[in-house]
Amino acid sequence: MVSTELRTDPITGRMAAIDLDPFKRRDDFEIMPARVEDLPSQCPLCEGREAEAGPEVLAWREGGPANVPGWSVRVVPNRHPMLRIEGTQDLHADGVMESRDGLGAHEVIVETPLHDQSLQSLEPDRIWRVLWAWRTRLQDLKRDRRFACAVIFKNHGRAAGARLDHAHSQLIAFPAMAPALADEWRGAARHMATTGRCLFCDVTAQELSDGRRLVADHTAVVAVAPYASRVPFETWLMPRDHSPRFEDVSDKTLEAVASALKAVMARIDWALERPSCNLVLHTAPFAADAEAAFHWHVEILPRVTRYSGLEWASGVHRNPVSPEEAARVLRG
Amino acid sequence: MVSTELRTDPITGRMAAIDLDPFKRRDDFEIMPARVEDLPSQCPLCEGREAEAGPEVLAWREGGPANVPGWSVRVVPNRHPMLRIEGTQDLHADGVMESRDGLGAHEVIVETPLHDQSLQSLEPDRIWRVLWAWRTRLQDLKRDRRFACAVIFKNHGRAAGARLDHAHSQLIAFPAMAPALADEWRGAARHMATTGRCLFCDVTAQELSDGRRLVADHTAVVAVAPYASRVPFETWLMPRDHSPRFEDVSDKTLEAVASALKAVMARIDWALERPSCNLVLHTAPFAADAEAAFHWHVEILPRVTRYSGLEWASGVHRNPVSPEEAARVLRG
Repeated sequence: MVSTELRTDPITGRMAAIDLDPFKRRDDFEIMPARVEDLPSQCPLCEGREAEAGPEVLAWREGGPANVPGWSVRVVPNRHPMLRIEGTQDLHADGVMESRDGLGAHEVIVETPLHDQSLQSLEPDRIWRVLWAWRTRLQDLKRDRRFACAVIFKNHGRAAGARLDHAHSQLIAFPAMAPALADEWRGAARHMATTGRCLFCDVTAQELSDGRRLVADHTAVVAVAPYASRVPFETWLMPRDHSPRFEDVSDKTLEAVASALKAVMARIDWALERPSCNLVLHTAPFAADAEAAFHWHVEILPRVTRYSGLEWASGVHRNPVSPEEAARVLRG
Repeated sequence: MVSTELRTDPITGRMAAIDLDPFKRRDDFEIMPARVEDLPSQCPLCEGREAEAGPEVLAWREGGPANVPGWSVRVVPNRHPMLRIEGTQDLHADGVMESRDGLGAHEVIVETPLHDQSLQSLEPDRIWRVLWAWRTRLQDLKRDRRFACAVIFKNHGRAAGARLDHAHSQLIAFPAMAPALADEWRGAARHMATTGRCLFCDVTAQELSDGRRLVADHTAVVAVAPYASRVPFETWLMPRDHSPRFEDVSDKTLEAVASALKAVMARIDWALERPSCNLVLHTAPFAADAEAAFHWHVEILPRVTRYSGLEWASGVHRNPVSPEEAARVLRG
């Protein structure tokens, strides 16, 4: 008999219904092939097709000109951007309805020149270059005062929403606070106001001393299965010391993130048979006063369960694997 | 060139990035077969297998004993319940983490005795009986003072999270306010406090006078494509007059909901080639003081787009079909 607990996320207040039973690979996981099976010969992100992907905003190159082969990471504007650089931040009201121009930036970080390499299959120094591109683009976009925040995410595999097999992540800068970031920020700001402490630091400290949900300790970076995990094997990578902005981290910390990411993804690939997966980077909103309470982190969300009527109706995520079980399995 | 608008939902404050281009059936819609292709011979919800589905809590029968064939709608406890009737409402704290027992109710409303009938393919008087079952079960569960609220939802088709082809909906009663309901309730309560009016009534009035997002007018019930629709062809059925609780509606209003549901689903099935779909019923939280500001409604959410990294990272839903275009197509 499954025993369930309703858990509240300490940061956002969102709720998850967590099955407390021991983990076993389950028939009700939807482990569909991650591959989209697009044709490498038509992939716009492959080396040699730089003109198709678009002019590069940033690239890691061992010398040589831009927009030709010879790169290991390459950042280009999204060809089908959700938000664009034209427009204003103004709010338009129509009765009780409010909208803004689709102002923002939408970039694609191509993580490797080769079609068939996943991010986690790259050597740590190559993953480091992807993180370097994330950091560099954030530093740059933040200077545009029309943007309130930016998020970076990755859709790996069909069930995670990928349209291409070629490994890439996306960066979107918004003209207003993105709601998911606002949820975290509000919870953290409330905690800061009442305790004077960073909530993410308090969570990390509790997880380190508790140990049950600790996945790995990479010194500068800690991997934790969140208490109210939304999906099986959800894992967060958090800097151990207070650090609001990913764009401010040191090269050394990027090394810790790269090796944590590779190690955790290897275990997730083993436990869930190379599942589709979303990655999320949350860094502090750009406003200077948003800084004190925030603490950047990477969220890893394997996609073996469906977003269904339950989630739409209640906002509660049903998670068939407790984070304690997930952490135990991921610790190996 | 796609032009995008960032819209804020007037009730919850959530954000959607809406493409304003004219609607065309798109290659990037994921229209996968809705059918799960389970075997009717093993379906626990089919007529004749009442013992397998479990003892009925409620059924629509033309006389005869319980738990045998002869029903048109049948409600049973979920065999794999997310929440159970045992436990207390108490909050358990562990440092900054909080949890509750998985206390609640989780029921299955079997909408037809036959394996191969969708809800929308039923005649309106048969749909009426399903709505009658929803209403009756809410009336009953609400009497258990340990429950704070209940939601009803339906997973139709594989992409919507269905595990069985046999048409059914689910009811879950929660020991605490469900976050998605809380989001709506907070927005509505704030509007009530500042204006003295029901926000849902104001939205409905604006949609009726504006007309661009009006899908259908069934007198007692209005079908609207919400201003900040999260998915293509999202449609809400709302009572025209203020009405907080679905469990209090008249037989006559259920008739209007049944015919609106059938008509709207027929148009959605036509426009999106019988997509997978989630249905959500939101009714006021059970506490008496939650009543004034709330306004029950049914949310219809076709599932032809993926919940991806963008949604996890930002909370912004990218919707490639504007509600104005969806309403235009659904009006036919």
